[in-house]
Amino acid sequence: MALVEGMPAGVTVRASDINRELARRQAGYGRGGRMKIERDEVELLSGVRFEKTLGGPVAMLVRNLDWQNWTERMAQSGDRGDIPLLVTARPGHADLSGVLKHGHDDVRNVLERASARETAPRVMAGTLAKLLLDSVGIKILGQVLSIGKVRVPESMAGDPATALASDSSELRMADPGAERKARRLIDRAIKDGTSVGGVVEVIATGVPPGLGSFVSWERRLDGRLGQAIMSIQAVKGVEIGDAVAAAGLPGSAVHDEIFRGSRRGNPLMGGYLLPFHRKTNRAGGVEGGMSNGEPVVVRAAMKPIPTQSNALRTVTVGDWKATTAHKERSDVCAVPACSVVAEAMVAVVLADVFLEKFGGDSLAEIQYNYKGYLESIRGRRT
Amino acid sequence: MALVEGMPAGVTVRASDINRELARRQAGYGRGGRMKIERDEVELLSGVRFEKTLGGPVAMLVRNLDWQNWTERMAQSGDRGDIPLLVTARPGHADLSGVLKHGHDDVRNVLERASARETAPRVMAGTLAKLLLDSVGIKILGQVLSIGKVRVPESMAGDPATALASDSSELRMADPGAERKARRLIDRAIKDGTSVGGVVEVIATGVPPGLGSFVSWERRLDGRLGQAIMSIQAVKGVEIGDAVAAAGLPGSAVHDEIFRGSRRGNPLMGGYLLPFHRKTNRAGGVEGGMSNGEPVVVRAAMKPIPTQSNALRTVTVGDWKATTAHKERSDVCAVPACSVVAEAMVAVVLADVFLEKFGGDSLAEIQYNYKGYLESIRGRRT
Amino acid sequence: MALVEGMPAGVTVRASDINRELARRQAGYGRGGRMKIERDEVELLSGVRFEKTLGGPVAMLVRNLDWQNWTERMAQSGDRGDIPLLVTARPGHADLSGVLKHGHDDVRNVLERASARETAPRVMAGTLAKLLLDSVGIKILGQVLSIGKVRVPESMAGDPATALASDSSELRMADPGAERKARRLIDRAIKDGTSVGGVVEVIATGVPPGLGSFVSWERRLDGRLGQAIMSIQAVKGVEIGDAVAAAGLPGSAVHDEIFRGSRRGNPLMGGYLLPFHRKTNRAGGVEGGMSNGEPVVVRAAMKPIPTQSNALRTVTVGDWKATTAHKERSDVCAVPACSVVAEAMVAVVLADVFLEKFGGDSLAEIQYNYKGYLESIRGRRT
Amino acid sequence: MALVEGMPAGVTVRASDINRELARRQAGYGRGGRMKIERDEVELLSGVRFEKTLGGPVAMLVRNLDWQNWTERMAQSGDRGDIPLLVTARPGHADLSGVLKHGHDDVRNVLERASARETAPRVMAGTLAKLLLDSVGIKILGQVLSIGKVRVPESMAGDPATALASDSSELRMADPGAERKARRLIDRAIKDGTSVGGVVEVIATGVPPGLGSFVSWERRLDGRLGQAIMSIQAVKGVEIGDAVAAAGLPGSAVHDEIFRGSRRGNPLMGGYLLPFHRKTNRAGGVEGGMSNGEPVVVRAAMKPIPTQSNALRTVTVGDWKATTAHKERSDVCAVPACSVVAEAMVAVVLADVFLEKFGGDSLAEIQYNYKGYLESIRGRRT
Repeated sequence: MALVEGMPAGVTVRASDINRELARRQAGYGRGGRMKIERDEVELLSGVRFEKTLGGPVAMLVRNLDWQNWTERMAQSGDRGDIPLLVTARPGHADLSGVLKHGHDDVRNVLERASARETAPRVMAGTLAKLLLDSVGIKILGQVLSIGKVRVPESMAGDPATALASDSSELRMADPGAERKARRLIDRAIKDGTSVGGVVEVIATGVPPGLGSFVSWERRLDGRLGQAIMSIQAVKGVEIGDAVAAAGLPGSAVHDEIFRGSRRGNPLMGGYLLPFHRKTNRAGGVEGGMSNGEPVVVRAAMKPIPTQSNALRTVTVGDWKATTAHKERSDVCAVPACSVVAEAMVAVVLADVFLEKFGGDSLAEIQYNYKGYLESIRGRRT
Repeated sequence: MALVEGMPAGVTVRASDINRELARRQAGYGRGGRMKIERDEVELLSGVRFEKTLGGPVAMLVRNLDWQNWTERMAQSGDRGDIPLLVTARPGHADLSGVLKHGHDDVRNVLERASARETAPRVMAGTLAKLLLDSVGIKILGQVLSIGKVRVPESMAGDPATALASDSSELRMADPGAERKARRLIDRAIKDGTSVGGVVEVIATGVPPGLGSFVSWERRLDGRLGQAIMSIQAVKGVEIGDAVAAAGLPGSAVHDEIFRGSRRGNPLMGGYLLPFHRKTNRAGGVEGGMSNGEPVVVRAAMKPIPTQSNALRTVTVGDWKATTAHKERSDVCAVPACSVVAEAMVAVVLADVFLEKFGGDSLAEIQYNYKGYLESIRGRRT
Repeated sequence: MALVEGMPAGVTVRASDINRELARRQAGYGRGGRMKIERDEVELLSGVRFEKTLGGPVAMLVRNLDWQNWTERMAQSGDRGDIPLLVTARPGHADLSGVLKHGHDDVRNVLERASARETAPRVMAGTLAKLLLDSVGIKILGQVLSIGKVRVPESMAGDPATALASDSSELRMADPGAERKARRLIDRAIKDGTSVGGVVEVIATGVPPGLGSFVSWERRLDGRLGQAIMSIQAVKGVEIGDAVAAAGLPGSAVHDEIFRGSRRGNPLMGGYLLPFHRKTNRAGGVEGGMSNGEPVVVRAAMKPIPTQSNALRTVTVGDWKATTAHKERSDVCAVPACSVVAEAMVAVVLADVFLEKFGGDSLAEIQYNYKGYLESIRGRRT
Repeated sequence: MALVEGMPAGVTVRASDINRELARRQAGYGRGGRMKIERDEVELLSGVRFEKTLGGPVAMLVRNLDWQNWTERMAQSGDRGDIPLLVTARPGHADLSGVLKHGHDDVRNVLERASARETAPRVMAGTLAKLLLDSVGIKILGQVLSIGKVRVPESMAGDPATALASDSSELRMADPGAERKARRLIDRAIKDGTSVGGVVEVIATGVPPGLGSFVSWERRLDGRLGQAIMSIQAVKGVEIGDAVAAAGLPGSAVHDEIFRGSRRGNPLMGGYLLPFHRKTNRAGGVEGGMSNGEPVVVRAAMKPIPTQSNALRTVTVGDWKATTAHKERSDVCAVPACSVVAEAMVAVVLADVFLEKFGGDSLAEIQYNYKGYLESIRGRRT
């Protein structure tokens, strides 16, 4: 279930758009059996008529096809009967802290909600954001930069063309050689009863300068991207542009000098040309808490999925005895899915800051306001 | 000016506490002339009586001692007269996007607000958060892990004792050898007309399990730390625990197994003992969007300060001609200050999630509620 | 569809509880044909297991049984075909402003969302709030004080016993004589092709002192009740206690003096006794933006439903010609339903302020924290 | 201290504008000695340069001129020494609930913050909102409709011309006869040791249709006005338009029919003409949670100020003995001030909903966007 408030009226939305993104989330080499059970199909419950948004909340439901196997154990009514408590807390998951926080005696009361399946609604909401952004010339592209220690070539990072190409790779890696190695790495991890993480990247093109704000910390674009990405399950690190590398370099090698004249126009906005450009984009399109007109580039470091078939040591909740973690069905490598989810989260943040600047009641109004802003940059808004 | 809403009543707050933290923010080798002009002294305007918070908003004012030099150019009343427009946009700053966003013709209308001086109110607010957290046994410690390519030894990362020791180092580096090298690096940067960045770390000890939430993305502790840290000026990357390293390792080497029995008690909470512990803390104290009982460890990658005495190429705003960036007075290395600011932001986030769980009207009530929660973990809350 | 975030774990929730409240909303004399079509049945989609909340969002769905008659005209996919535009804007409704705001060409794009059917999710969410409040001894009762100019006796206002008794009246009026007159008034309105409004009242008993806040305007209980009630469809006026009458009286006749000793205890909190009481409750249980320990009493003035079978004059949208309003199926008197919706909104606000004060992760924790607070009032919290 | 976030750049703001509104708040017959001590003068601390807003937060400080008399008793540092505790809780105030909520032992810790002096920052913030609204042709006018049982003629309610005229009356009543009677009523109340309340009205002209929203309850304009007004100290009732009267009338006499053609244009927006108008405004300019193009009319019922020189019975806090309320310096009638504060709150709400629809970065951009919206109503936005 995803509920999206704040969509302007007049944006074209089809269930097929959402289903396509849900399928991208479910693809990938090294996914668990779960992905075979579920083929997510969205039901639009409200907010859309004749394929156009109406301006009200858009409610979207994806039924869990695995649900039939859980009707008894996860029943909403009736009593528990002889269904056993699950009391082992898996390291790396919400299990332990979740039961303590809420006073549960059953780890299952936590883990079903804390499941990475929660990323499906993120993708559903993100699709709406992408459709809105697409109407104003902003494209969101994702790719996998590394799985385990296997990386695509450095030059592919930050490159929209590469990110676009990665969509036809099962592991969302644009470099076929790296993808082959990554498959072998995943095979090895399966054999070893472990899992692998990696790094994903999202690139947003066509973003105008001035989204976000420098005036207070909650409104900064960098902070909001930081929250959105860090909130993705298993993501523990975020950088915008070349942050980690830049921390080791002198300032002279880090900042993106500004040059007069335009490099490209946005065809969706009538080929609009900015009167300046950069030759580098180490800042990842964000300066001073705002977009700067260059592509926004965000990277996320994902830890290996904690569920291991070679189980980790842990304790039981309540009587605190030593045991090993139980196994829920799980992926060995969810890095490609993570890149799709990260696209969704970047889209949600950019749609938010776009609507804050340009209003939010209808697409026609937003496009008119946006055009006026672009014209004002050249001093031509009347 | 900092305005803090939501402080419970009964927390001891003295201006001297805030001034001490402000002084820590101003210290450091490689700071600009600005730091010599200003010795920040806070004025408490509301919310405190006889050194105790009252439960209402705490307003705190630090007068800019440099203000007298700017009364004419930044006057609130009167007209501009013959004060010239500043039209060069410095790369790496809010200058360019800020004037476009707000339709300004004067870059100064942006840069005075976008200044890193805005970190002073963060430190003021953060001090209140630290004082509250200290009342429930949570300590916030920061240190510098690297400046440019100079790093302290790997083993110092995540170590509260090291972080504590770093407080007596001008560069907030606990390793004297690294500090010496970093000073030389800064001297070199000054000579080269450039600047240097680095990596800082904040460690919070005494954090109970279950702060934050796994149930929705906006409430997750990792996301909120991500936003708070990424929103700091010049910070472009954030990791919780060993995120970047973990992305390249197998799951078996990443997750922190859980063992029965306690490792330590929190003397402020009556030596309270958790019935479990970890031997590693690669997760940086956060699992499933919640604190897990281990120290919370957050790292930030700071880019070199963009103002360079060896000026960068840029354009003028409005008529878009090629020029070089003007120079505002600036630091060459603000990494030690960044670690103090990062402490403040971590404190603010942890105070927020703490109060969400334990209520917020008086310190006595919070301590009572907190004690009940700790007892519930052992099954002893009545 | 209602989505409730922030419910603590451990609260007993059954679909039957929600259905019962939905049925109360649908009852009443003078309801349109719509109420006969729909017998709302909730489907719990998430957040509840074995009749207990889990701590995550509770999603609740009520299918519109009238939907089958609208599948073509309100289809989410496909194109409009030859379905005609609705262009007459009914006075008193969202029709006119809604189409202008969102740039619609079809009034139906507004009116289906702006429908009073949106009060069903309010009641669903309100039921969860009531169940939580009931667990800590707070009861929410509603009654109708007047329909048109027919009023129940003055003495019934603010009386919980009367409000309880009103539940067995079809018009939710505790006075049989008034109810008889009100029925005749409704019959007359039907004959005249018009509609009638009225005044409803909600009483919350068992509310402890100190919910809400005096420290900032957004946190005041009176303001939050004001928003919640005024946001109900067709409600245009709100008062807390005897506000309108009090504005005409001298202060000596308005304020509720405070006396020592207790008048009653809350059996759900172990018969807890406050050490003070009032003999009057003209303030409606709210002073200084906070509950004061007396029952919270809120009244709402509902205008007559704007849809009139004797149609009002209006214009067409777009070409702005004179016409008369079209007729959607509608009630003649929805005042009894309004009292049920007002109960729900008061419950939501009180649950919010209760959880802000006492935390929100599990019912057991909240009850422990609440007990400590009550003990602190007598100076006995340890 | 008032801190206003979200002001667009380019709005003209002078300290004299704010001081004039502060003086209006302080005027009135029947004000206490306090009003003579204080002549509020604002200090603009940030966000304005050369009389134009910059787009960042505007911080405004008014020093309490009475402060010198309280430096010892309300000192922020040092200890209490022999300053006595205040333990009597005045009925009608925040005193009792406030000390219980926050665990205070001194009523003064509550009453200084809960003071109606907090309405000064509301007026400061409201002035900024008024200046912004004025730039787009929206005027905010307030008047007093009644004091005690003395009312101005019915026909004056909802009339902008009357409200404008009331500004030259000390009691803000446009009818000289009513004002004379109200003065005598206040004189009598002074003699009787009591206080009087009344009803105030705020009228906003030039409001376009479509501000606020029908899509979710938190975004409705009526609800937001309800909260803002009900949150004013001593206000216990709110109505929009003729709510209370309308609840007793048939629908045919309540709703405002819509007619083609324009009645007036907004000179500030180039004499813009709406293609429809109403002959009545019983709805107070709000339908379906949105403004409808007619003046927005909001009324507030204010209770008599609770402090009475003829003291009320109450109890002591902590040992719960019977006593009488202590006397703080207070007004006998603050209804005229209330109308100024209500203007401010209406302005804040309307500025919020205006900026939500039209963006918020600069006045020029907002005016451009607004003009496009007005043109779209006639189908002429390009």
